[in-house]
Amino acid sequence: MSTGEGATGNESDAPRVLGEDDLPPCCRKARASAPESEATCHETVVSGWFSKPLSDTDGELVYFNNPMWPGEAHSLKVEKILYQGKSEFQEILVFESSMYGKVLALDGIVQLTERDECAYQEMIAHLPLCSIPSPKTVLVLGGGDGGVLREIARHSSVEHIDICEIDKMVIDVCKKFFPDLSVGFEDPRVHLHIDDAVKFIRDTPEGMYDAIIVDSSDPIGPARELVEKPFFEIIARALRPGGVLCNQAESMWLHTHLIQEMLSICRETFSTVHYAWASVPTYPSGVIGFLLCSTNGPPVNFLNPINPIDKQEVVKYKELKFYNSEIHKAAFALPAFAKRELSSFLSTPLRQADC
Amino acid sequence: MSTGEGATGNESDAPRVLGEDDLPPCCRKARASAPESEATCHETVVSGWFSKPLSDTDGELVYFNNPMWPGEAHSLKVEKILYQGKSEFQEILVFESSMYGKVLALDGIVQLTERDECAYQEMIAHLPLCSIPSPKTVLVLGGGDGGVLREIARHSSVEHIDICEIDKMVIDVCKKFFPDLSVGFEDPRVHLHIDDAVKFIRDTPEGMYDAIIVDSSDPIGPARELVEKPFFEIIARALRPGGVLCNQAESMWLHTHLIQEMLSICRETFSTVHYAWASVPTYPSGVIGFLLCSTNGPPVNFLNPINPIDKQEVVKYKELKFYNSEIHKAAFALPAFAKRELSSFLSTPLRQADC
Repeated sequence: MSTGEGATGNESDAPRVLGEDDLPPCCRKARASAPESEATCHETVVSGWFSKPLSDTDGELVYFNNPMWPGEAHSLKVEKILYQGKSEFQEILVFESSMYGKVLALDGIVQLTERDECAYQEMIAHLPLCSIPSPKTVLVLGGGDGGVLREIARHSSVEHIDICEIDKMVIDVCKKFFPDLSVGFEDPRVHLHIDDAVKFIRDTPEGMYDAIIVDSSDPIGPARELVEKPFFEIIARALRPGGVLCNQAESMWLHTHLIQEMLSICRETFSTVHYAWASVPTYPSGVIGFLLCSTNGPPVNFLNPINPIDKQEVVKYKELKFYNSEIHKAAFALPAFAKRELSSFLSTPLRQADC
Repeated sequence: MSTGEGATGNESDAPRVLGEDDLPPCCRKARASAPESEATCHETVVSGWFSKPLSDTDGELVYFNNPMWPGEAHSLKVEKILYQGKSEFQEILVFESSMYGKVLALDGIVQLTERDECAYQEMIAHLPLCSIPSPKTVLVLGGGDGGVLREIARHSSVEHIDICEIDKMVIDVCKKFFPDLSVGFEDPRVHLHIDDAVKFIRDTPEGMYDAIIVDSSDPIGPARELVEKPFFEIIARALRPGGVLCNQAESMWLHTHLIQEMLSICRETFSTVHYAWASVPTYPSGVIGFLLCSTNGPPVNFLNPINPIDKQEVVKYKELKFYNSEIHKAAFALPAFAKRELSSFLSTPLRQADC
């Protein structure tokens, strides 16, 4: 979940600094409470901190506090720090936790744990790819851990996978500590591009991809560019008619305003716009959302996967841990509060006859 | 979520003490790590603790650590402690959190927060009541906060609601600090019984209820009786033919062995057995499960609610925040890992023609 977005390639070439008034209340609050952190601070959310300074922990219990929202964190007991480093773009931390296996944190925010990474990786890959017939060309923006690539590789129709990740150090660290994810890079269909996501997609020929998956950081602060209209417009341009986008889209419990904003922009750019979610225990509020859009062209019915993963393919790879067709359909059912806040931004489901 | 179960009324009249070998690995581990806690210890899970002793916090930030699993906790920033007391059965704590509103913790474990209580209360009430035509008599075991009663009251067909809660202090504290939940007690159809749940249900006439809702503590340690066969047998006896049980049933991410055990017992006792789940950010791993069973008699198809909540009723009460018919159906979709582990214990869905 790192694209390094916004580092280069935006209109002004200078990092965009948000004023207090640009931030919605939750983010203003988050910024205000940043000094709580004992470690480095992400621009707009409270960063993970350790319950004890690491230099002072002989024999004592140490917890890593995964920030969820101002005023709350998910504390994970640390068995051993495996790696701490700083790339050109971010701080990278890998530790062995007592119950979630190895954990990757970027700028103090948990990106994945071995225990529950299956939910995020499988859903962000298969929600779009199972919704269109025979996807052949796929682009991943971010996703340097390789997990999304691993999932895309299950689709035998896929012929070409591009991945654009800005931070090579994330890839190298994951190859060392997360071989079950970075195995995704070994597929011969994968073509790696170390580059800025916005620049890469801008240089992409029109109609190049059947599916684009944006495995990005939180779209506040430096990654804000990735939820703005110009980004979605160049994404749509790079997709074939009837092509699909799947974008990480925050928590329905915490960031409804950001989700509304993304949906609103996408309604202007795409033909259909839907929102799905999945349970991921180590993400804020225990869920993560997905924005699913398709371009003008053959209609796409995200709510009824027409391209289920063949069981023969599952034999070739490890079994799916999270995704199946029922979970795919169920992912679009929104709680009443979220339905009220989001439904006016969503496409109505296609009738069976339209597909 | 307090029934005081096991305090009296079990076969031997003595609290059952579990040996280390009786506990599944996660619970053994939990017990082993209990000394981490700075506050009181629940019998088998790590209790909530404060990041600072409360006597030593002038002007400092204080977090309440809601235990989720050994080696992890959900840290909630405390704005103000509103109530601390000890009843005959448990320690009761109410505090104002910075982001989840007021929080109720029993024996150091978060039972509800104002922000996300809607998900639990609405699902545990409406999953069973929307699955049968015109429920008239309903029993709640536990549920002293009143939230489940509030939800049952939305069903105009209901004529009589019994609630059996052992700990009167929980009711009194909730009436003072959680009026939006304890409002449930004000409905004239509600009849309160301060008693032990097992004793109460044992004394209930056969076939008395259309639906029984068990809003209990975690079924490990002292509440273990509530997941054993004799309990489910007396529940089944108290239900009419084709009556329904909905029981809080842990997290599919954390306690699969307990869920398997409950499902296995219920398969021997009930006609149909299903498992559903919902997103609740402040519960362990961000989800809570529900065991749904029906007795021999008119078939019940839990997966397709035949008794949706009438919109006119919603006007009379506050709007539903979480539950709707789509979420009801989606709640039965299990991730691949849970499906593999649980499906052999579950009833197959009824065909439409069977209902």
